[in-house]
Amino acid sequence: TKPFALIAGPCQMESRDHAMEMASALKEMAQNLGLGLVYKSSFDKANRTSGSAKRGIGLDKALPIFADIREELGLPVITDVHEPDQCKKVAEVVDVLQIPAFLCRQTDLLVAAAETGKPVNVKKGQFMAPWDMKNVLAKLCDAGNQDVLLTERGASFGYNTLVTDFRSIPIMAETGAPVIFDATHSVQQPGGQGNSSGGERRFVATLARAAVAVGVAGLFIETHEDPDSAPSDGPNMVPLSELETLLTDLIAIDYLIKTPATETA
Amino acid sequence: TKPFALIAGPCQMESRDHAMEMASALKEMAQNLGLGLVYKSSFDKANRTSGSAKRGIGLDKALPIFADIREELGLPVITDVHEPDQCKKVAEVVDVLQIPAFLCRQTDLLVAAAETGKPVNVKKGQFMAPWDMKNVLAKLCDAGNQDVLLTERGASFGYNTLVTDFRSIPIMAETGAPVIFDATHSVQQPGGQGNSSGGERRFVATLARAAVAVGVAGLFIETHEDPDSAPSDGPNMVPLSELETLLTDLIAIDYLIKTPATETA
Amino acid sequence: TKPFALIAGPCQMESRDHAMEMASALKEMAQNLGLGLVYKSSFDKANRTSGSAKRGIGLDKALPIFADIREELGLPVITDVHEPDQCKKVAEVVDVLQIPAFLCRQTDLLVAAAETGKPVNVKKGQFMAPWDMKNVLAKLCDAGNQDVLLTERGASFGYNTLVTDFRSIPIMAETGAPVIFDATHSVQQPGGQGNSSGGERRFVATLARAAVAVGVAGLFIETHEDPDSAPSDGPNMVPLSELETLLTDLIAIDYLIKTPATETA
Amino acid sequence: TKPFALIAGPCQMESRDHAMEMASALKEMAQNLGLGLVYKSSFDKANRTSGSAKRGIGLDKALPIFADIREELGLPVITDVHEPDQCKKVAEVVDVLQIPAFLCRQTDLLVAAAETGKPVNVKKGQFMAPWDMKNVLAKLCDAGNQDVLLTERGASFGYNTLVTDFRSIPIMAETGAPVIFDATHSVQQPGGQGNSSGGERRFVATLARAAVAVGVAGLFIETHEDPDSAPSDGPNMVPLSELETLLTDLIAIDYLIKTPATETA
Repeated sequence: TKPFALIAGPCQMESRDHAMEMASALKEMAQNLGLGLVYKSSFDKANRTSGSAKRGIGLDKALPIFADIREELGLPVITDVHEPDQCKKVAEVVDVLQIPAFLCRQTDLLVAAAETGKPVNVKKGQFMAPWDMKNVLAKLCDAGNQDVLLTERGASFGYNTLVTDFRSIPIMAETGAPVIFDATHSVQQPGGQGNSSGGERRFVATLARAAVAVGVAGLFIETHEDPDSAPSDGPNMVPLSELETLLTDLIAIDYLIKTPATETA
Repeated sequence: TKPFALIAGPCQMESRDHAMEMASALKEMAQNLGLGLVYKSSFDKANRTSGSAKRGIGLDKALPIFADIREELGLPVITDVHEPDQCKKVAEVVDVLQIPAFLCRQTDLLVAAAETGKPVNVKKGQFMAPWDMKNVLAKLCDAGNQDVLLTERGASFGYNTLVTDFRSIPIMAETGAPVIFDATHSVQQPGGQGNSSGGERRFVATLARAAVAVGVAGLFIETHEDPDSAPSDGPNMVPLSELETLLTDLIAIDYLIKTPATETA
Repeated sequence: TKPFALIAGPCQMESRDHAMEMASALKEMAQNLGLGLVYKSSFDKANRTSGSAKRGIGLDKALPIFADIREELGLPVITDVHEPDQCKKVAEVVDVLQIPAFLCRQTDLLVAAAETGKPVNVKKGQFMAPWDMKNVLAKLCDAGNQDVLLTERGASFGYNTLVTDFRSIPIMAETGAPVIFDATHSVQQPGGQGNSSGGERRFVATLARAAVAVGVAGLFIETHEDPDSAPSDGPNMVPLSELETLLTDLIAIDYLIKTPATETA
Repeated sequence: TKPFALIAGPCQMESRDHAMEMASALKEMAQNLGLGLVYKSSFDKANRTSGSAKRGIGLDKALPIFADIREELGLPVITDVHEPDQCKKVAEVVDVLQIPAFLCRQTDLLVAAAETGKPVNVKKGQFMAPWDMKNVLAKLCDAGNQDVLLTERGASFGYNTLVTDFRSIPIMAETGAPVIFDATHSVQQPGGQGNSSGGERRFVATLARAAVAVGVAGLFIETHEDPDSAPSDGPNMVPLSELETLLTDLIAIDYLIKTPATETA
């Protein structure tokens, strides 16, 4: 029985110190819980609701920090790419490249990510049917990379609202790709605060429990020691202090549903 | 730890023999599994997609059969009402009155159901926000009946499609009412077969697992020994032969999430 | 060239005096504009968001007032029915029976309305695909009544929001039934004010212009001399003082699109 | 009274000959009708449903052809850009840069397009509320370019379906930017044919009439002499042979609604 993998970290990379502290804390937590961890942070929030919102420290400052996290803490890292020509450079440092949801059909970006040979995690667009992700996967495979993860992060439901259709998990799993559930972006309210996106942190546990019970290969959870002061995604990130309890509950469900009935009897 | 209650039965009451057979089989299954069971069937499918579809055997023929199920098998029964003046008559026989989703805002029907004094299960309309069910609940309470259940059965998502928003379970639970998840109507495709509704039976387990992991007071599952020959809801009903395995999985999740961590440790 | 028919009036019948004043004003306006008018008011708002909201004066008080409007002003009248056993009584007085959107699939109500022999206007449910209204129409035709109107009034779009899909007008028109556009309910925000429905009156003209340009047989517009004081639907009703200007604009579009190009050249 | 501008052309640039023929035919048509025309074609379909679908002739081959259209036919041209570093090069040749809907929140692309000084047409994302386009506009204005057009092209409505919410036209117009209606992409069915997007060409006229009646600064219509053989967007493009009749109808509505009542009396 293999538990779900955890992709976690603060939405933005804020500084070297902050990243090392968060990564250390998450590493210890994951070890205690027996979870595989991939540390996630963005070097650039390339599609903020508002142009005046903080975008992050940028690729050049972030890559050495990712390298340090890998070396000093021994953690694999994941970050998102936004332009084809970022892929090669980023892939020299990080372990997994991530394709943002809005960009999940941009062929050049998918191909450039695939051609790095690194695993690629593609977030399903808010405008995509789950069965259409097979075409996205094919773009990557046709570029020679079959090491692809697919992530559910909510579908457009009227304005400023997302809904998670949990049928998408088995539908995407039929492609053979591991399916990840992004529990913190799924509770986002895109653009819902006028100049920034809102979110309903209180439903992260609700949706994460549902996803684990359906059966996922991994969970994606953004976390921060003080979400309300974070430069982005504050309304939907999980406070670091609450993450271990949440994960403990989720691990129990995950273990249960992944264990053959004969073993639990 | 109280497990979820099970509301189950074939969509339509077809005949006395069929009803007794189904009810007996479900009673035995529920006893084996340690589940409370309420037997469900409709005497009238009052809003079929097509006027030429089978509507059922009717109130007058159905009530004596419900009475027999209660007496001979000792099972509580639930059925749906469509007109205010049906409520009193139906309440003389059945244990729980159910308000169909399309009718969940019809004040007279809600009041007439409430005034019977019997518990009332209201299905959330496909057009309703979960937070608006507090107003429905208030209509029943104001009529003197606080014994109300609220059921999630999917929300309109484009045409001929429903999506289940699992946030609705904690949102409706905040009213204090027990929340039921209707796992078979939630996979319906309303009007999706041109002259009748379609459905995706294969996702019943997916959505039911999610609901139980979120935490529900009850599950509503329509079942039939031969769904593809059933007079209604065939595409979404669970074959009776597959129900026990499904329930066994769900009970394990339910037990896990309802048991305090200290007890499982 | 036949202009669109106008179905108009205040949402609720409030009193005999109010009804006669509104009907007189609308009659004069329609005559000035050369529009056929059917006076609309509800005797009962049977599905208010909240049970404590005003429901109306009731069938028994309303029917004599409808009779007076017909006799004294010579206006045809339309009102909505909610139970099968109301149809016959209402049909003795009014010219057109209307089926509310939530009830558009209730077979008994449709059949009872059809059997009166009076024209029946069915509002498309917020949860219905436009192509599925052919089945609703068939229920009425099979009951012996082919004098059916179909009305577009918005589709569920996320929570507390409707969207009007103008493709529905030609799709429903393919059935052969005259298609009406309900310009005031289409801007409703169902349940959007917590205990009552909101609405965006400022978009009535936007959507009405779109509908007329697509081509409709009729427009349904609720109006009131003081919408903000009206007992229901205030946020979306058009002030009576603004109606003539709105209609004048709409008539010009309607005339243009219904006139063969050779005549306008 | 200024009529709507027309942005038209085949979805993809196929060859020099094809482009010159299409542009010539459209130029003549627009002159006959008294419409301003901007010739549109894509040099790269960067987000095809399937990786094996035709993407186009590419930037390097396309720019000289755009230059020829401008010089030989005197037509302004518009094309879409997908990466920030394309903007400058493209802006040397084309008159208007277009931001694809999926990319409408990519800050770097918006800024790069703005900094060319050329007018920028941004398509509203299928996942965006119309009121959130003010933030997109601000990103461009803050980059020093106020010459921005906003285009409605449908919103996600369930899976594989778009709906056009015509309230978006006045809402986006409140920003002060000219609003364009894209009549051919609004009838797309994204991913709706399994490996490619479907579309319902028959509703182009329906939605275009609605948009013009609401009031738009421009219409965007993709056209082809043989849509069913076109390399992309065949199901939704308008046959060139039907375009003049469609435009004639739309011009009449446009003229009517933009002419002060006193002038038409």
